[in-house]
Amino acid sequence: MTQIDRSQTDTSAVAPLHMIDIIRKKRDGGTLDAREIEFVARGAAAGSIPADQLAAWLMAAWIKGLSLSETRALTLAMRDSGEKFSPARLGRQAPKRTVDKHSTGGVGDKTSFLVAPLAAACGAAVPMISGRALGHTGGTLDKLEAIPGYRTALTLAEFEAVLEKCGASIVSQTPTLVPADRVLYALRDRTGTVENPGLICASILSKKLAAGLDALVLDVKTGSGAFLRKLEDCEFLAALMVATAEAAGTRTVALLTDMSQPLGRAAGNWIELVESVGLLRGQRPAWSEDLRELSLILAGWMIHLGGQAESPEVGYKRAEAALMDGSALRIFFAMIEAQDGDASVFDDPAAFHKPGATVVVDAWESGFVAEMDTTALGWAVQRTGAGREKAGEPVDPHAGIEFYARRGARVERGQPLATIYATRPERLAEPVAILKQAIRFSESPPQAVVPLVSRVFTRDTAEKYLKDSGQ
Amino acid sequence: MTQIDRSQTDTSAVAPLHMIDIIRKKRDGGTLDAREIEFVARGAAAGSIPADQLAAWLMAAWIKGLSLSETRALTLAMRDSGEKFSPARLGRQAPKRTVDKHSTGGVGDKTSFLVAPLAAACGAAVPMISGRALGHTGGTLDKLEAIPGYRTALTLAEFEAVLEKCGASIVSQTPTLVPADRVLYALRDRTGTVENPGLICASILSKKLAAGLDALVLDVKTGSGAFLRKLEDCEFLAALMVATAEAAGTRTVALLTDMSQPLGRAAGNWIELVESVGLLRGQRPAWSEDLRELSLILAGWMIHLGGQAESPEVGYKRAEAALMDGSALRIFFAMIEAQDGDASVFDDPAAFHKPGATVVVDAWESGFVAEMDTTALGWAVQRTGAGREKAGEPVDPHAGIEFYARRGARVERGQPLATIYATRPERLAEPVAILKQAIRFSESPPQAVVPLVSRVFTRDTAEKYLKDSGQ
Repeated sequence: MTQIDRSQTDTSAVAPLHMIDIIRKKRDGGTLDAREIEFVARGAAAGSIPADQLAAWLMAAWIKGLSLSETRALTLAMRDSGEKFSPARLGRQAPKRTVDKHSTGGVGDKTSFLVAPLAAACGAAVPMISGRALGHTGGTLDKLEAIPGYRTALTLAEFEAVLEKCGASIVSQTPTLVPADRVLYALRDRTGTVENPGLICASILSKKLAAGLDALVLDVKTGSGAFLRKLEDCEFLAALMVATAEAAGTRTVALLTDMSQPLGRAAGNWIELVESVGLLRGQRPAWSEDLRELSLILAGWMIHLGGQAESPEVGYKRAEAALMDGSALRIFFAMIEAQDGDASVFDDPAAFHKPGATVVVDAWESGFVAEMDTTALGWAVQRTGAGREKAGEPVDPHAGIEFYARRGARVERGQPLATIYATRPERLAEPVAILKQAIRFSESPPQAVVPLVSRVFTRDTAEKYLKDSGQ
Repeated sequence: MTQIDRSQTDTSAVAPLHMIDIIRKKRDGGTLDAREIEFVARGAAAGSIPADQLAAWLMAAWIKGLSLSETRALTLAMRDSGEKFSPARLGRQAPKRTVDKHSTGGVGDKTSFLVAPLAAACGAAVPMISGRALGHTGGTLDKLEAIPGYRTALTLAEFEAVLEKCGASIVSQTPTLVPADRVLYALRDRTGTVENPGLICASILSKKLAAGLDALVLDVKTGSGAFLRKLEDCEFLAALMVATAEAAGTRTVALLTDMSQPLGRAAGNWIELVESVGLLRGQRPAWSEDLRELSLILAGWMIHLGGQAESPEVGYKRAEAALMDGSALRIFFAMIEAQDGDASVFDDPAAFHKPGATVVVDAWESGFVAEMDTTALGWAVQRTGAGREKAGEPVDPHAGIEFYARRGARVERGQPLATIYATRPERLAEPVAILKQAIRFSESPPQAVVPLVSRVFTRDTAEKYLKDSGQ
């Protein structure tokens, strides 16, 4: 195809665009150019393209896929659809590099509460814009709001002030930041167009790039609790995000991590904070070891990419020191108080925990924990009252589930497997029933137990992966 | 697959349905059951499913396709979404069989004005619910409204009264008839989900079946002016509609007919009525011969299926007699007057025709008429002012194009090829430019000129076709 149809190119350079033509082109498997992609992103942000046309386009994009060039164009167009955050305004005396971590969502995934203060304690600035519970996964903002008074909706000026004072701030998206994503994200949730690599990449990265980050660590979940179940889809998404963010000027790495069981002991809101603060206090309870290890690995990469360590391994060691000497804990509490939260509730975490109903689920047989349907376990957590049935509903800060089983571990019949905390006694039955379906035992130890981090994509390996996969 | 997953069937029998699950199932290529399809159709009619979710579902259905069972279920669910018309209330003394004809849309397609009075003259009742101009195709209602006073929006009681008095009535869809189609049709037009066999079939047949027809003749257009361009798509749609309507109890036949050039001489509003009334008056102008022939073939089938002739050939002869003896013309005029139209405008049709601007386009070279891009010609007609740019706009009754060229005919440079009538002089340029692009000449006569009717599907041949195509 070396010949160029001049009439076509001449026309497209001047002709006004129509959404209906863009929908039909994607529907028929065509590749949209940057101008067409920008038309969609701007129209979504401005409200000039109605939701039904956006929904049809999203479904066509979901089924036919977005190419690498389309994904890049969409990410940048969404990034540019609203106000942007400028890291240059941080640390006026000695500018700090801004670093963030983002996960694709899991069950019991509370690493943000550890990595943000750990990286800050080691000299990076962590401007973390987080989300709420979605589907079977928990939401960092919902968890933080279990702390009395904690405000997630800061103004940009307040956000910058907390960052400068504490080195880390965890807030909600502002209404003016990436408005295209706010529209498209809500639509995707309603129209069955969530789990697509290009759309996920553009949604995550547009927000991260609008925050003007110097570096970004992506935690791409794999296994039974991940949104993308197939390993090759996770790998593709990880490589796609690294290549896209690097092309936009942000140092980026993606780790493929295990979500074939809940991360750590707790999945809920307050109980996840308690587990995190325990680790920040230097405790090492058995069921939190995977959470501690993953948090240190992620923080190590953040510290390395943030220029505070010559390798991720050195970063890991610096993070571990900040964990053990209490400096990360002090930053976490300072951030809570800077955002009007009452950190004194952590003085006696058990006294603050007031679930409406509690039940302990004992192992119903003896054997090795062979498989966990972690997505089902996430839905069980949501059903306790810890998550929402519909957008906008309040969540119960005290509801959730504590798990005392790990894949590969031997358990005896009658041994406690989990404690379920629900809003009301009648909300206990469904989580119990789901739990009993979701955990499977075997007579002999399961063959393969997945490593915590199975693969790391840097810019070079991401680009090689995409090239090899024909993108 | 002889095993049945009981847990699955047991659950689906009682579990409430959610649109998001139905969207995802179709997106992933699943086959929806009748209960799920009914949920969509009822939700569309009741407004309980928002447009964005319907749009995502339509796009998934467009790309993944609807199976024969899904198409049947959708057709019936849409038929049952509102009020229905009861043919039993017609002809109280001697009940008549109700027969209709429906075409998939073309350029210059005015057979309705001929077949409705022809079939009525031969003893059938023709309750014809028609549509407006869509895309590059004309609309029967827009054409009839060129007659001063003609009312297309009758109440059901008025519709029945005209039918009983005249034997035929051409009206618009009532707000209460097939509300699911009104919602889905408007959405399909906006979201690029029009040209799908299952969706087209359900849209057309739901309306026809809600009219309680005894028999139906379908005119499926093929060639450069048809909505579906590929012959196999047209064949599939024809077979699908015949099998679906027959399964619902309506005697149905589908004819694949040629739309590789405009049908007859005129394409517009008033000028199409004039051409039709000329034929009903027994005139046989050269450029109207294909229109006359197709109308008699379609009417022959209507008369046959309506039980007034033992074969379509005998029906053709009866129709031709009703054309020549003036009885069909009398019925057409009676119907116009029963619907408050002033039929006296046909006394001097030329005097009533007052286009805003007129230009004659002469052949720009000598040769044989080889190809016509009939869709482009349809857009040229729309641009004269005869059609709409946006839904709800008025159309110009006097605008349109008269064509004096037929594929395969020899023309000499300078010989008139078409007359363009536009609303304003400045609206002449675009139709002229389109016309010059859309008609191609050749030095020698074109090899293949398509027959007027290339294939007929009856119940048996339709079912065989679908079986052979793996449906």
